[in-house]
Amino acid sequence: MPIRVIGLDADDTLWRTNIHFELTEARFAELLAPYAPPQVLRDRLRETEIRNLRLYGYGAKGFTLSMIETALGATGGQVPGAVVGEILAQGRALLETPVEPLPGVRDTLEALARDRRLVLITKGDLLHQEQKLAASGLGELFSAVEIVSDKTEATYARILGAMEVEPDAFLMVGDSLRSDVLPALKLGAFAAHVPHDWAWAHEHAEVPIDHPRYLRLDALTELPERLARLQAEAAA
Amino acid sequence: MPIRVIGLDADDTLWRTNIHFELTEARFAELLAPYAPPQVLRDRLRETEIRNLRLYGYGAKGFTLSMIETALGATGGQVPGAVVGEILAQGRALLETPVEPLPGVRDTLEALARDRRLVLITKGDLLHQEQKLAASGLGELFSAVEIVSDKTEATYARILGAMEVEPDAFLMVGDSLRSDVLPALKLGAFAAHVPHDWAWAHEHAEVPIDHPRYLRLDALTELPERLARLQAEAAA
Repeated sequence: MPIRVIGLDADDTLWRTNIHFELTEARFAELLAPYAPPQVLRDRLRETEIRNLRLYGYGAKGFTLSMIETALGATGGQVPGAVVGEILAQGRALLETPVEPLPGVRDTLEALARDRRLVLITKGDLLHQEQKLAASGLGELFSAVEIVSDKTEATYARILGAMEVEPDAFLMVGDSLRSDVLPALKLGAFAAHVPHDWAWAHEHAEVPIDHPRYLRLDALTELPERLARLQAEAAA
Repeated sequence: MPIRVIGLDADDTLWRTNIHFELTEARFAELLAPYAPPQVLRDRLRETEIRNLRLYGYGAKGFTLSMIETALGATGGQVPGAVVGEILAQGRALLETPVEPLPGVRDTLEALARDRRLVLITKGDLLHQEQKLAASGLGELFSAVEIVSDKTEATYARILGAMEVEPDAFLMVGDSLRSDVLPALKLGAFAAHVPHDWAWAHEHAEVPIDHPRYLRLDALTELPERLARLQAEAAA
Protein backbone atom coordinates (compact mmCIF):
# COMPACT_ATOMS: atom_id res chain seq x y z
CA MET A 1 0.00 0.00 0.00
CA PRO A 2 1.37 3.46 -0.81
CA ILE A 3 2.29 5.73 2.11
CA ARG A 4 -0.51 8.31 2.38
CA VAL A 5 0.28 9.97 5.70
CA ILE A 6 3.66 11.07 7.10
CA GLY A 7 4.06 11.75 10.81
CA LEU A 8 6.84 14.14 11.74
CA ASP A 9 8.47 14.73 15.09
CA ALA A 10 9.18 18.43 15.76
CA ASP A 11 12.01 19.06 18.26
CA ASP A 12 15.40 18.22 16.72
CA THR A 13 13.68 16.93 13.59
CA LEU A 14 12.24 20.20 12.18
CA TRP A 15 14.23 22.61 14.34
CA ARG A 16 16.92 22.47 17.01
CA THR A 17 15.81 22.17 20.63
CA ASN A 18 18.23 19.97 22.50
CA ILE A 19 21.15 22.38 22.11
CA HIS A 20 19.18 25.07 23.98
CA PHE A 21 18.51 22.72 26.88
CA GLU A 22 22.20 21.75 26.92
CA LEU A 23 23.31 25.40 27.02
CA THR A 24 20.87 26.05 29.85
CA GLU A 25 22.25 23.07 31.70
CA ALA A 26 25.78 24.42 31.29
CA ARG A 27 24.73 27.80 32.67
CA PHE A 28 22.97 26.06 35.55
CA ALA A 29 26.23 24.26 36.42
CA GLU A 30 28.16 27.54 36.26
CA LEU A 31 25.64 29.25 38.49
CA LEU A 32 26.06 26.58 41.16
CA ALA A 33 29.81 26.11 40.68
CA PRO A 34 30.52 27.36 44.24
CA TYR A 35 28.58 24.38 45.60
CA ALA A 36 29.52 21.37 43.47
CA PRO A 37 31.55 20.34 40.40
CA PRO A 38 29.75 20.77 37.06
CA GLN A 39 29.49 17.04 36.35
CA VAL A 40 27.94 16.33 39.74
CA LEU A 41 25.39 19.10 39.17
CA ARG A 42 24.51 17.80 35.72
CA ASP A 43 24.13 14.26 37.03
CA ARG A 44 21.90 15.42 39.87
CA LEU A 45 19.79 17.50 37.51
CA ARG A 46 19.37 14.49 35.22
CA GLU A 47 18.30 12.31 38.17
CA THR A 48 15.80 14.94 39.33
CA GLU A 49 14.39 15.28 35.81
CA ILE A 50 13.91 11.52 35.47
CA ARG A 51 12.33 11.27 38.92
CA ASN A 52 9.90 14.11 38.06
CA LEU A 53 9.04 12.92 34.56
CA ARG A 54 5.99 11.01 35.78
CA LEU A 55 4.61 14.20 37.36
CA TYR A 56 5.92 17.00 35.12
CA GLY A 57 6.16 15.28 31.73
CA TYR A 58 8.43 16.70 29.03
CA GLY A 59 9.09 20.38 28.41
CA ALA A 60 10.69 23.58 29.62
CA LYS A 61 8.39 24.25 32.59
CA GLY A 62 9.08 20.90 34.25
CA PHE A 63 12.79 21.32 33.40
CA THR A 64 12.82 24.69 35.20
CA LEU A 65 11.13 23.21 38.28
CA SER A 66 13.70 20.38 38.27
CA MET A 67 16.57 22.90 38.07
CA ILE A 68 15.21 24.73 41.12
CA GLU A 69 14.81 21.47 43.03
CA THR A 70 18.36 20.41 42.13
CA ALA A 71 19.74 23.79 43.19
CA LEU A 72 18.01 23.40 46.56
CA GLY A 73 19.57 19.97 47.01
CA ALA A 74 23.04 21.05 45.90
CA THR A 75 23.09 23.99 48.34
CA GLY A 76 21.79 22.04 51.32
CA GLY A 77 18.56 24.01 51.17
CA GLN A 78 20.44 27.36 51.29
CA VAL A 79 20.01 28.37 47.64
CA PRO A 80 20.47 32.16 47.24
CA GLY A 81 17.45 34.04 45.94
CA ALA A 82 19.55 35.40 43.08
CA VAL A 83 20.21 31.86 41.86
CA VAL A 84 16.50 31.01 41.95
CA GLY A 85 15.77 34.21 40.01
CA GLU A 86 18.41 33.35 37.42
CA ILE A 87 16.98 29.83 36.96
CA LEU A 88 13.48 31.27 36.44
CA ALA A 89 14.95 33.63 33.83
CA GLN A 90 16.72 30.74 32.07
CA GLY A 91 13.46 28.80 31.97
CA ARG A 92 11.63 31.78 30.47
CA ALA A 93 14.43 32.17 27.90
CA LEU A 94 13.96 28.51 26.90
CA LEU A 95 10.26 29.18 26.32
CA GLU A 96 11.09 32.28 24.28
CA THR A 97 13.92 30.87 22.13
CA PRO A 98 13.27 31.79 18.51
CA VAL A 99 12.42 28.83 16.30
CA GLU A 100 14.19 28.38 12.99
CA PRO A 101 13.55 25.35 10.79
CA LEU A 102 16.67 23.30 9.98
CA PRO A 103 18.18 23.90 6.51
CA GLY A 104 15.99 22.58 3.69
CA VAL A 105 13.15 21.54 5.99
CA ARG A 106 10.53 23.86 4.49
CA ASP A 107 11.23 22.76 0.89
CA THR A 108 11.22 19.11 1.95
CA LEU A 109 7.88 19.43 3.74
CA GLU A 110 6.39 21.25 0.74
CA ALA A 111 7.54 18.42 -1.55
CA LEU A 112 6.14 15.76 0.79
CA ALA A 113 2.84 17.59 1.28
CA ARG A 114 2.15 17.55 -2.45
CA ASP A 115 1.14 13.87 -2.49
CA ARG A 116 0.55 13.10 1.16
CA ARG A 117 -0.98 14.37 4.36
CA LEU A 118 1.53 15.52 6.98
CA VAL A 119 0.87 15.20 10.72
CA LEU A 120 3.03 16.77 13.38
CA ILE A 121 3.41 14.40 16.35
CA THR A 122 5.37 15.82 19.26
CA LYS A 123 5.81 15.70 23.02
CA GLY A 124 6.34 18.65 25.37
CA ASP A 125 4.38 21.54 26.83
CA LEU A 126 1.16 22.00 24.87
CA LEU A 127 1.20 25.81 24.61
CA HIS A 128 4.95 25.96 23.98
CA GLN A 129 4.81 23.42 21.13
CA GLU A 130 1.93 25.33 19.53
CA GLN A 131 3.91 28.54 19.84
CA LYS A 132 7.02 26.96 18.29
CA LEU A 133 5.02 25.62 15.37
CA ALA A 134 3.46 29.06 14.81
CA ALA A 135 6.89 30.73 15.03
CA SER A 136 8.40 28.22 12.58
CA GLY A 137 6.01 29.29 9.83
CA LEU A 138 5.51 25.61 8.94
CA GLY A 139 2.05 25.25 10.46
CA GLU A 140 -0.01 25.41 7.28
CA LEU A 141 1.87 22.44 5.79
CA PHE A 142 0.37 20.08 8.37
CA SER A 143 -3.15 18.73 8.08
CA ALA A 144 -3.14 17.82 11.78
CA VAL A 145 -1.08 18.53 14.90
CA GLU A 146 -0.89 16.01 17.74
CA ILE A 147 0.82 17.16 20.91
CA VAL A 148 1.06 14.09 23.13
CA SER A 149 2.38 13.29 26.59
CA ASP A 150 4.22 10.19 25.39
CA LYS A 151 4.88 8.36 22.13
CA THR A 152 4.02 4.70 22.44
CA GLU A 153 2.54 2.15 20.07
CA ALA A 154 -0.87 3.03 21.59
CA THR A 155 -0.33 6.74 20.87
CA TYR A 156 0.29 6.04 17.18
CA ALA A 157 -2.60 3.58 17.03
CA ARG A 158 -4.97 6.22 18.41
CA ILE A 159 -3.79 8.89 15.95
CA LEU A 160 -4.01 6.55 12.94
CA GLY A 161 -7.42 5.34 14.10
CA ALA A 162 -8.77 8.90 14.29
CA MET A 163 -7.42 9.61 10.77
CA GLU A 164 -8.74 6.28 9.46
CA VAL A 165 -5.31 5.36 8.10
CA GLU A 166 -3.91 1.82 8.14
CA PRO A 167 -0.43 1.40 9.68
CA ASP A 168 1.09 0.26 6.36
CA ALA A 169 0.06 3.57 4.78
CA PHE A 170 1.86 5.57 7.48
CA LEU A 171 5.50 6.62 7.89
CA MET A 172 6.85 8.23 11.08
CA VAL A 173 9.98 10.40 10.89
CA GLY A 174 12.04 11.59 13.84
CA ASP A 175 15.32 11.76 15.70
CA SER A 176 14.43 9.32 18.47
CA LEU A 177 14.62 5.54 18.04
CA ARG A 178 12.67 5.02 21.23
CA SER A 179 9.83 7.51 20.56
CA ASP A 180 9.58 7.85 16.78
CA VAL A 181 10.97 4.69 15.20
CA LEU A 182 10.43 1.61 17.37
CA PRO A 183 6.74 2.11 18.33
CA ALA A 184 5.84 2.90 14.69
CA LEU A 185 7.60 -0.22 13.41
CA LYS A 186 5.94 -2.32 16.10
CA LEU A 187 2.53 -1.08 14.98
CA GLY A 188 3.25 -2.18 11.40
CA ALA A 189 4.00 1.31 10.06
CA PHE A 190 7.11 2.60 8.28
CA ALA A 191 9.71 4.63 10.18
CA ALA A 192 12.59 6.91 9.18
CA HIS A 193 15.33 7.84 11.63
CA VAL A 194 17.16 11.15 11.30
CA PRO A 195 19.63 11.30 14.21
CA HIS A 196 20.00 14.92 15.29
CA ASP A 197 23.48 14.56 16.65
CA TRP A 198 25.95 12.75 14.43
CA ALA A 199 28.82 12.92 16.89
CA TRP A 200 26.69 11.30 19.54
CA ALA A 201 25.23 8.68 17.23
CA HIS A 202 28.69 7.60 16.01
CA GLU A 203 30.30 7.67 19.39
CA HIS A 204 27.67 5.46 20.92
CA ALA A 205 27.79 3.02 18.00
CA GLU A 206 24.05 3.03 17.55
CA VAL A 207 22.65 -0.43 16.90
CA PRO A 208 21.69 -0.64 13.23
CA ILE A 209 18.12 -1.74 12.69
CA ASP A 210 17.53 -4.31 10.03
CA HIS A 211 13.87 -4.00 9.16
CA PRO A 212 12.08 -3.89 5.82
CA ARG A 213 10.01 -0.84 6.84
CA TYR A 214 12.94 1.12 8.31
CA LEU A 215 14.89 3.97 6.69
CA ARG A 216 18.03 5.62 8.07
CA LEU A 217 18.56 9.20 6.85
CA ASP A 218 21.42 11.64 7.32
CA ALA A 219 19.02 14.57 6.96
CA LEU A 220 15.29 15.09 6.54
CA THR A 221 15.98 16.52 3.06
CA GLU A 222 16.76 12.97 1.85
CA LEU A 223 13.24 11.76 2.60
CA PRO A 224 11.37 12.56 -0.67
CA GLU A 225 13.91 10.65 -2.78
CA ARG A 226 14.21 7.73 -0.36
CA LEU A 227 10.46 7.50 -0.17
CA ALA A 228 10.13 7.44 -3.96
CA ARG A 229 12.71 4.63 -4.11
CA LEU A 230 10.97 2.69 -1.35
CA GLN A 231 7.62 2.86 -3.15
CA ALA A 232 9.20 1.95 -6.51
CA GLU A 233 10.79 -1.14 -4.91
CA ALA A 234 7.51 -2.12 -3.31
CA ALA A 235 5.73 -1.80 -6.67
CA ALA A 236 8.40 -3.86 -8.53
CA MET B 1 -31.03 19.40 14.00
CA PRO B 2 -30.69 17.07 17.02
CA ILE B 3 -27.63 17.46 19.22
CA ARG B 4 -25.32 14.60 18.36
CA VAL B 5 -22.13 15.58 20.17
CA ILE B 6 -21.70 17.02 23.67
CA GLY B 7 -18.47 18.75 24.65
CA LEU B 8 -17.66 18.76 28.35
CA ASP B 9 -15.21 20.89 30.25
CA ALA B 10 -13.29 18.94 32.94
CA ASP B 11 -11.98 21.09 35.81
CA ASP B 12 -14.83 22.27 38.05
CA THR B 13 -17.36 20.72 35.69
CA LEU B 14 -16.62 17.00 36.19
CA TRP B 15 -14.48 17.32 39.33
CA ARG B 16 -13.29 20.06 41.67
CA THR B 17 -10.02 21.82 40.84
CA ASN B 18 -10.29 25.45 41.77
CA ILE B 19 -10.64 24.76 45.48
CA HIS B 20 -7.22 23.04 45.48
CA PHE B 21 -5.58 26.05 43.83
CA GLU B 22 -7.28 28.33 46.36
CA LEU B 23 -6.06 26.26 49.29
CA THR B 24 -2.54 26.32 47.84
CA GLU B 25 -2.78 30.08 47.47
CA ALA B 26 -3.81 30.38 51.13
CA ARG B 27 -0.83 28.28 52.22
CA PHE B 28 1.43 30.38 50.01
CA ALA B 29 0.21 33.54 51.76
CA GLU B 30 0.81 31.95 55.17
CA LEU B 31 4.31 30.88 54.18
CA LEU B 32 5.22 34.45 53.25
CA ALA B 33 3.26 36.12 56.06
CA PRO B 34 6.50 37.53 57.59
CA TYR B 35 7.04 39.58 54.42
CA ALA B 36 3.64 40.94 53.38
CA PRO B 37 -0.08 40.84 54.30
CA PRO B 38 -2.03 37.90 52.80
CA GLN B 39 -4.13 40.05 50.47
CA VAL B 40 -1.06 41.78 49.02
CA LEU B 41 0.57 38.40 48.40
CA ARG B 42 -2.55 37.04 46.71
CA ASP B 43 -2.84 40.11 44.51
CA ARG B 44 0.82 39.91 43.50
CA LEU B 45 0.51 36.20 42.75
CA ARG B 46 -2.54 36.90 40.57
CA GLU B 47 -0.64 39.63 38.68
CA THR B 48 2.35 37.32 38.15
CA GLU B 49 0.08 34.53 36.92
CA ILE B 50 -1.63 36.81 34.42
CA ARG B 51 1.67 38.23 33.19
CA ASN B 52 3.05 34.69 32.71
CA LEU B 53 -0.05 33.23 31.09
CA ARG B 54 1.22 33.95 27.59
CA LEU B 55 4.40 31.97 28.34
CA TYR B 56 3.29 29.29 30.80
CA GLY B 57 -0.33 28.76 29.79
CA TYR B 58 -2.79 27.21 32.27
CA GLY B 59 -1.96 24.54 34.81
CA ALA B 60 -0.16 23.60 38.00
CA LYS B 61 3.42 23.78 36.69
CA GLY B 62 3.11 27.39 35.53
CA PHE B 63 1.25 28.20 38.76
CA THR B 64 4.18 26.82 40.78
CA LEU B 65 6.71 28.86 38.79
CA SER B 66 4.57 31.97 39.34
CA MET B 67 4.44 31.29 43.10
CA ILE B 68 8.25 31.10 43.22
CA GLU B 69 8.58 34.31 41.21
CA THR B 70 6.10 36.09 43.51
CA ALA B 71 7.96 34.85 46.59
CA LEU B 72 11.21 36.27 45.18
CA GLY B 73 9.56 39.63 44.60
CA ALA B 74 7.84 39.72 48.01
CA THR B 75 11.11 39.01 49.85
CA GLY B 76 13.21 41.49 47.89
CA GLY B 77 15.08 38.60 46.29
CA GLN B 78 15.95 37.08 49.69
CA VAL B 79 13.52 34.17 49.66
CA PRO B 80 14.64 31.47 52.12
CA GLY B 81 15.46 28.09 50.56
CA ALA B 82 12.92 26.44 52.87
CA VAL B 83 10.15 28.57 51.36
CA VAL B 84 11.19 27.62 47.81
CA GLY B 85 11.21 23.96 48.85
CA GLU B 86 7.75 24.28 50.37
CA ILE B 87 6.37 25.92 47.21
CA LEU B 88 7.81 23.10 45.07
CA ALA B 89 6.14 20.60 47.40
CA GLN B 90 2.80 22.44 47.15
CA GLY B 91 3.06 22.36 43.37
CA ARG B 92 3.74 18.63 43.40
CA ALA B 93 0.79 18.14 45.75
CA LEU B 94 -1.46 19.98 43.27
CA LEU B 95 -0.34 17.60 40.53
CA GLU B 96 -0.98 14.61 42.78
CA THR B 97 -4.37 15.64 44.20
CA PRO B 98 -6.73 12.68 43.90
CA VAL B 99 -9.53 13.21 41.41
CA GLU B 100 -13.09 12.44 42.37
CA PRO B 101 -16.02 13.09 40.04
CA LEU B 102 -18.68 15.44 41.45
CA PRO B 103 -21.86 13.73 42.78
CA GLY B 104 -23.95 12.19 40.04
CA VAL B 105 -21.49 12.98 37.25
CA ARG B 106 -20.80 9.36 36.27
CA ASP B 107 -24.51 8.46 35.99
CA THR B 108 -25.20 11.63 34.04
CA LEU B 109 -22.39 10.99 31.57
CA GLU B 110 -23.56 7.39 31.14
CA ALA B 111 -27.07 8.62 30.36
CA LEU B 112 -25.81 11.23 27.90
CA ALA B 113 -23.42 8.78 26.22
CA ARG B 114 -26.29 6.43 25.35
CA ASP B 115 -27.55 8.60 22.48
CA ARG B 116 -24.66 10.94 21.80
CA ARG B 117 -20.90 11.18 21.47
CA LEU B 118 -19.13 12.87 24.37
CA VAL B 119 -15.93 14.88 23.90
CA LEU B 120 -13.81 16.15 26.76
CA ILE B 121 -12.49 19.66 25.98
CA THR B 122 -10.17 21.09 28.59
CA LYS B 123 -7.26 23.47 29.14
CA GLY B 124 -4.23 22.89 31.36
CA ASP B 125 -1.07 20.80 31.45
CA LEU B 126 -1.35 18.00 28.88
CA LEU B 127 0.05 15.17 31.01
CA HIS B 128 -1.76 16.32 34.16
CA GLN B 129 -5.15 16.48 32.43
CA GLU B 130 -4.63 13.00 30.99
CA GLN B 131 -3.70 11.73 34.44
CA LYS B 132 -6.77 13.34 36.02
CA LEU B 133 -9.06 11.81 33.42
CA ALA B 134 -7.47 8.39 33.99
CA ALA B 135 -7.80 8.79 37.77
CA SER B 136 -11.45 9.86 37.46
CA GLY B 137 -12.41 6.55 35.89
CA LEU B 138 -14.58 8.45 33.38
CA GLY B 139 -12.23 8.08 30.42
CA GLU B 140 -14.07 5.32 28.58
CA LEU B 141 -17.26 7.42 28.40
CA PHE B 142 -15.59 9.89 26.02
CA SER B 143 -15.16 9.19 22.34
CA ALA B 144 -12.49 11.90 22.08
CA VAL B 145 -10.33 13.99 24.42
CA GLU B 146 -9.13 17.44 23.38
CA ILE B 147 -6.61 19.11 25.65
CA VAL B 148 -6.17 22.62 24.31
CA SER B 149 -4.11 25.69 25.20
CA ASP B 150 -7.10 28.03 24.94
CA LYS B 151 -10.83 27.81 24.26
CA THR B 152 -11.85 30.23 21.54
CA GLU B 153 -14.38 30.08 18.74
CA ALA B 154 -11.52 28.85 16.49
CA THR B 155 -10.72 26.04 18.94
CA TYR B 156 -14.31 24.75 18.82
CA ALA B 157 -14.46 25.18 15.04
CA ARG B 158 -11.32 23.05 14.63
CA ILE B 159 -12.64 20.29 16.93
CA LEU B 160 -16.06 20.19 15.23
CA GLY B 161 -14.39 20.23 11.81
CA ALA B 162 -12.23 17.24 12.68
CA MET B 163 -15.32 15.36 13.94
CA GLU B 164 -17.38 16.44 10.92
CA VAL B 165 -20.11 17.81 13.15
CA GLU B 166 -22.10 20.96 12.37
CA PRO B 167 -22.27 23.61 15.13
CA ASP B 168 -26.03 23.23 15.51
CA ALA B 169 -25.56 19.54 16.37
CA PHE B 170 -23.11 20.39 19.17
CA LEU B 171 -23.61 21.41 22.81
CA MET B 172 -20.76 22.61 25.05
CA VAL B 173 -21.09 22.30 28.83
CA GLY B 174 -18.85 23.97 31.39
CA ASP B 175 -18.42 26.29 34.35
CA SER B 176 -16.85 29.18 32.45
CA LEU B 177 -18.91 31.71 30.50
CA ARG B 178 -15.78 33.01 28.80
CA SER B 179 -14.26 29.67 27.77
CA ASP B 180 -17.16 27.23 27.52
CA VAL B 181 -20.33 29.19 26.79
CA LEU B 182 -19.67 32.36 24.79
CA PRO B 183 -17.34 30.98 22.07
CA ALA B 184 -19.67 28.00 21.51
CA LEU B 185 -22.73 30.26 21.15
CA LYS B 186 -20.81 32.54 18.80
CA LEU B 187 -19.99 29.58 16.59
CA GLY B 188 -23.67 28.68 16.33
CA ALA B 189 -23.55 25.77 18.78
CA PHE B 190 -25.58 25.21 21.96
CA ALA B 191 -24.07 25.91 25.36
CA ALA B 192 -24.94 24.95 28.94
CA HIS B 193 -23.49 26.82 31.89
CA VAL B 194 -22.99 25.05 35.23
CA PRO B 195 -21.38 27.62 37.56
CA HIS B 196 -19.06 25.79 39.95
CA ASP B 197 -19.25 28.32 42.71
CA TRP B 198 -22.72 29.44 43.63
CA ALA B 199 -21.60 31.92 46.26
CA TRP B 200 -19.35 33.60 43.75
CA ALA B 201 -21.92 33.61 40.97
CA HIS B 202 -24.57 35.21 43.20
CA GLU B 203 -22.27 37.73 44.77
CA HIS B 204 -21.06 38.98 41.43
CA ALA B 205 -24.60 39.17 40.04
CA GLU B 206 -23.68 37.27 36.91
CA VAL B 207 -25.23 38.76 33.80
CA PRO B 208 -28.05 36.49 32.62
CA ILE B 209 -27.68 35.42 29.02
CA ASP B 210 -30.80 35.54 26.92
CA HIS B 211 -30.07 33.30 23.99
CA PRO B 212 -32.20 30.59 22.32
CA ARG B 213 -29.31 28.09 22.36
CA TYR B 214 -28.28 28.75 25.97
CA LEU B 215 -29.09 26.65 29.05
CA ARG B 216 -28.34 27.57 32.65
CA LEU B 217 -28.02 24.57 35.00
CA ASP B 218 -27.61 24.31 38.75
CA ALA B 219 -25.80 20.99 38.35
CA LEU B 220 -24.59 18.79 35.52
CA THR B 221 -27.09 16.14 36.64
CA GLU B 222 -29.91 18.32 35.23
CA LEU B 223 -28.56 18.12 31.71
CA PRO B 224 -30.25 14.93 30.36
CA GLU B 225 -33.72 16.20 31.26
CA ARG B 226 -33.09 19.77 30.07
CA LEU B 227 -31.69 18.43 26.84
CA ALA B 228 -34.74 16.24 26.27
CA ARG B 229 -37.01 19.25 26.85
CA LEU B 230 -34.91 21.44 24.53
CA GLN B 231 -35.15 18.90 21.72
CA ALA B 232 -38.87 18.38 22.27
CA GLU B 233 -39.45 22.14 22.01
CA ALA B 234 -37.36 22.31 18.85
CA ALA B 235 -39.37 19.47 17.31
CA ALA B 236 -42.70 21.07 18.27
